[in-house]
Amino acid sequence: MYQQKHQAIIIMGVSGAGKTTIGKLLSEKTAFPFFDADDFHSSENIEKMKAGVALTDADRSQWLSNLNDLLLKQLQNNSCILACSALKEAYRKVLSQHCERQVRFIHLTGTYEKILEQMRLRKGHFIPTTLLQSQFETLETPLNAYHLSINKSPEVITEEIYREIFERSEIGIVGLGVMGKSLCRNFANHGFRISMYNRHVDDKEVDIAKNFKAAFTELEEAQAFDDIPSFVQSLQHPRKILIMVNAGKPTDDVIASLTPYLTPNDILIDGGNTFFEDTARRQEALLQQKIHFIGCGISGGEEGALYGPSLMPSGNKEAYALIQPYLESIAAKDIHEQPCCAYIGEKGSGHFIKMVHNGIEYVEMQLLAEVYAILSAQRKTPDEIASILEVWKSRQADSYLLNITIDILREKENEDWLIHSIIDNAHSKGTGNWATIEITKRAIPATLIATALYARYISSCKHLRTSMSSLYPKNNAPGNDVPVEQLREAYELARIINHYQGFWLITEAFHQFGWKADLSEMARIWTNGCIIRSALMQELVTVFAEANSILTSPHFTGTIQRLKPSLSKVVATSIENEIAVPCFSEAINFLHGITTAQSAANLLQAQRDYFGAHRFQRYDAAEEQTFHHQWKKY
Amino acid sequence: MYQQKHQAIIIMGVSGAGKTTIGKLLSEKTAFPFFDADDFHSSENIEKMKAGVALTDADRSQWLSNLNDLLLKQLQNNSCILACSALKEAYRKVLSQHCERQVRFIHLTGTYEKILEQMRLRKGHFIPTTLLQSQFETLETPLNAYHLSINKSPEVITEEIYREIFERSEIGIVGLGVMGKSLCRNFANHGFRISMYNRHVDDKEVDIAKNFKAAFTELEEAQAFDDIPSFVQSLQHPRKILIMVNAGKPTDDVIASLTPYLTPNDILIDGGNTFFEDTARRQEALLQQKIHFIGCGISGGEEGALYGPSLMPSGNKEAYALIQPYLESIAAKDIHEQPCCAYIGEKGSGHFIKMVHNGIEYVEMQLLAEVYAILSAQRKTPDEIASILEVWKSRQADSYLLNITIDILREKENEDWLIHSIIDNAHSKGTGNWATIEITKRAIPATLIATALYARYISSCKHLRTSMSSLYPKNNAPGNDVPVEQLREAYELARIINHYQGFWLITEAFHQFGWKADLSEMARIWTNGCIIRSALMQELVTVFAEANSILTSPHFTGTIQRLKPSLSKVVATSIENEIAVPCFSEAINFLHGITTAQSAANLLQAQRDYFGAHRFQRYDAAEEQTFHHQWKKY
Repeated sequence: MYQQKHQAIIIMGVSGAGKTTIGKLLSEKTAFPFFDADDFHSSENIEKMKAGVALTDADRSQWLSNLNDLLLKQLQNNSCILACSALKEAYRKVLSQHCERQVRFIHLTGTYEKILEQMRLRKGHFIPTTLLQSQFETLETPLNAYHLSINKSPEVITEEIYREIFERSEIGIVGLGVMGKSLCRNFANHGFRISMYNRHVDDKEVDIAKNFKAAFTELEEAQAFDDIPSFVQSLQHPRKILIMVNAGKPTDDVIASLTPYLTPNDILIDGGNTFFEDTARRQEALLQQKIHFIGCGISGGEEGALYGPSLMPSGNKEAYALIQPYLESIAAKDIHEQPCCAYIGEKGSGHFIKMVHNGIEYVEMQLLAEVYAILSAQRKTPDEIASILEVWKSRQADSYLLNITIDILREKENEDWLIHSIIDNAHSKGTGNWATIEITKRAIPATLIATALYARYISSCKHLRTSMSSLYPKNNAPGNDVPVEQLREAYELARIINHYQGFWLITEAFHQFGWKADLSEMARIWTNGCIIRSALMQELVTVFAEANSILTSPHFTGTIQRLKPSLSKVVATSIENEIAVPCFSEAINFLHGITTAQSAANLLQAQRDYFGAHRFQRYDAAEEQTFHHQWKKY
Repeated sequence: MYQQKHQAIIIMGVSGAGKTTIGKLLSEKTAFPFFDADDFHSSENIEKMKAGVALTDADRSQWLSNLNDLLLKQLQNNSCILACSALKEAYRKVLSQHCERQVRFIHLTGTYEKILEQMRLRKGHFIPTTLLQSQFETLETPLNAYHLSINKSPEVITEEIYREIFERSEIGIVGLGVMGKSLCRNFANHGFRISMYNRHVDDKEVDIAKNFKAAFTELEEAQAFDDIPSFVQSLQHPRKILIMVNAGKPTDDVIASLTPYLTPNDILIDGGNTFFEDTARRQEALLQQKIHFIGCGISGGEEGALYGPSLMPSGNKEAYALIQPYLESIAAKDIHEQPCCAYIGEKGSGHFIKMVHNGIEYVEMQLLAEVYAILSAQRKTPDEIASILEVWKSRQADSYLLNITIDILREKENEDWLIHSIIDNAHSKGTGNWATIEITKRAIPATLIATALYARYISSCKHLRTSMSSLYPKNNAPGNDVPVEQLREAYELARIINHYQGFWLITEAFHQFGWKADLSEMARIWTNGCIIRSALMQELVTVFAEANSILTSPHFTGTIQRLKPSLSKVVATSIENEIAVPCFSEAINFLHGITTAQSAANLLQAQRDYFGAHRFQRYDAAEEQTFHHQWKKY
């Protein structure tokens, strides 16, 4: 049995459902004190009810507030049990004020006929049966409760509640990969009772959950499973299950294996790097079975997941409200100690911005790789490069990725640096790929993400590169080394452009989807926990409070204009030195392009009209008017 | 009625089907001389048949050859009718040698019982009924014939044949947009009888086909329709219908409207810029109804479609054989007078290479736009730039796109050049978009296509560019002008890299699909008719006969190495001059990247392993072995 934190168990339901009976039985079994809310009514309320007059919300207000005081007082020293109809969500909200995480609602449910019969058998109760109909009408079935039918005997019902309260976990985690494991430990470290599941695969995945539980003291109270039915039955209602498996088919498979055991109002949370359209599809499909599905982007890698990730949930907002305390507890905290977790919006919007987050991350990594390439070509050692980056840290460039790059470059193995032993074949998973496809499909040229992805693809052509390098020896560099300070400035500007493009992509895509984008809030939840946290991201929280674009923010215009020559020069020098700098190049080309009022694309339109009669617009005509010219004289 | 070219109408089918009866009736109706193949048998063959012995193919060889001579002789002056069983494809091939386009097979079909009954009613015929079974066994039902059931009266059958021969068109074209219209005129100019269909849309598309027919003398004999049933019924069997509508839903809609009126063996040809996977999907779906579907990439724009496009058909090879003469007739001709039309392979392979063709085209256009941007920044007039390009023409750079660019730059309107009035907002249709998505999905970094597409997207951000240009004024250029000869060399190399990437994309993708790629043949059909025809493409025909990659071909290695400094210098200078040159930049970055044996991507792998435990490969271990390092010391 779990070591319990104090709990307030509220037995709720319409009058006559048997709340007092069950409450007393449970009190006997648990030795928790029992209170009947009816005993706390004012005499005026009691008179009204005796006269068959329904209480108004005003009549109830002071009563509910008194009950909440009672619970708060009890919880200081003990758990307790309260029988209270609590028919409306608003009542339940007052009851659980300031003790949300400790209150558990047990809803006794029955048909009108069954309860009427039960009431007729009762004596000495002051509520006339005429009120029952109005009770049924008032009842707002709670999402966040354990619903128990009164068709069973009071003893069986009490036993069920006992199990729910004492033996079941608050949240379940499916999939114990790197991220899943870290999140389990994070939940456990925050005092959550968890159930953990990992599939069994003969000879390959055996006793994963059990062995994991055994390895960490914080998991002593966690329950470990390798079969789905027991795992689901180990969870409190409504069940909250976080799925941490690979995106795509594995996620669909897990969902399919879970659903036969779920009941309405259960909540699945997909914390994988899922394609955002899949999230919306799954939400719709599961809604047919009244299962809620929250797509939740999670960033932070192994360490972030363990000590506090950045969380990007989206989907049904009411269902989200039920898991919000869980997610906020395990999330990283921003500089104001607020959780790096925010409801992003409907459908797969959370996974969409996680995809863009990863796109920004691809570029941040590639820019560091290009810095490393440029400095290595100057025959600097990894340690020397790390020292240079250390200086940059204090000058605008501080970021998680910069810090780990410094760690990496300093890592030695025997006499050499470890980085020298690592093969330059960079892999990629789905998100960079998806982001590039979205950019392409939606005509939003956040070009750096595509460039960074393709740089990885080119890195994977290792055999081709090796054979080409002997066919095309590098020409002798003209001896122009990029000055370190110029490189720092170029890096600073390229990062600004990267962040501009990333948030621009979100703005434009959300506009296409008809979603509302709160850029400042997105930047805020990315200031800690996630891979792209940085001093720049912290600046963006305030920048986006006032501007909706980095390029038009007065905070940046001067800096960008000042740094432009350095980025131009670094690209020019590197290319003449025959060093590939695709992201630096694209950053400056994008900036040059997006600040060009009149480009050469008029020639493209003329060509298209010449060979395909595709027509063009003219400066001296309305925008919607198009023209075809007979270019060729036959 | 059509003005006929001479035709040889061969009435075929098993013995007893009534070929002679029908042949004679048709001869009376048309005044074409009638011949009965049986009259041309040697006496040895007649004896054998009387004795109930089936003829061997050797027995038939001389007989068929004599019949072919007869047809060829007749066709010099007249049409003619021949009754001949022609049961096997091989026999029909001999019969129609050297007169394929003039021979029409009419196949009289009936059940064994029906024909047996008909034979029993007949007198004086030397074939015993015992042979009938063997005739049915021998029969290879022709794909390329008009099948007519003998259940109708000989007069009705004759009337039907008359209509087929004299009143129906050889090919139908659906969709009279720019390309559809040009192709109609092209077919008509090559002596084909065509039917043309364009939908009717109230107030928008009214009498399109009729008015088009009226506008051109070569369409005098063409049939014009705006209703599908009449259009389909106006076509000879098997019907050959070329669909020229927008890709996607419009194509599906046209197919759905046609199929109820089609019969087995009819052939649909999709000449639109269709996504290649859609082509394969449609082929499979239509095969259920025994309809053949050929996806045919068509390039050439308005003019190419009219005077000779480049054609890239794919799909069922036997069905293709039936339309091959049609397509080859209208195709452009290469320098050896061979048609720029080649069977590309199965499924949507034709549309796939058309997509890549268009990708190469996007880049070729963008490179010219960048040349124009660089030279314009040097305050050269469009005419001066045209004169420079005129010189380049004679030095490796000759291409269709270069030529039309020269025409465009010289075009004046009043006192100014027309190009100055055209808005620099370049549109794009599906192919560049799809090509970029394929590059991304298949991890084949043919990066220039993506870059050219994104350049168009940036051009479409006209309002953003205009407002950004005042926020970020261009810094004064340091006065470095790119020398024209250096620019020519850069352009030459960037085009080589563009073609390398395009054919590399085809090679790698075909490999993934398990298709066979004949790069030399693809280059050959792109040497004329299409938008990317050029002197370089002509060189590639022979280069790909010996090498499967431009970068490894000895024909190019020296040139590439020699031109590299010019491309580097042009990019460096342009970027410092604050001119966006995304395709030139990406070309040199790609070349630098793909010729770098050891890149900085080892840092990416280290970073991925640091934050996500994604593991890396090591130089001192086997390729399949991966490692995780504990970077952070806790």
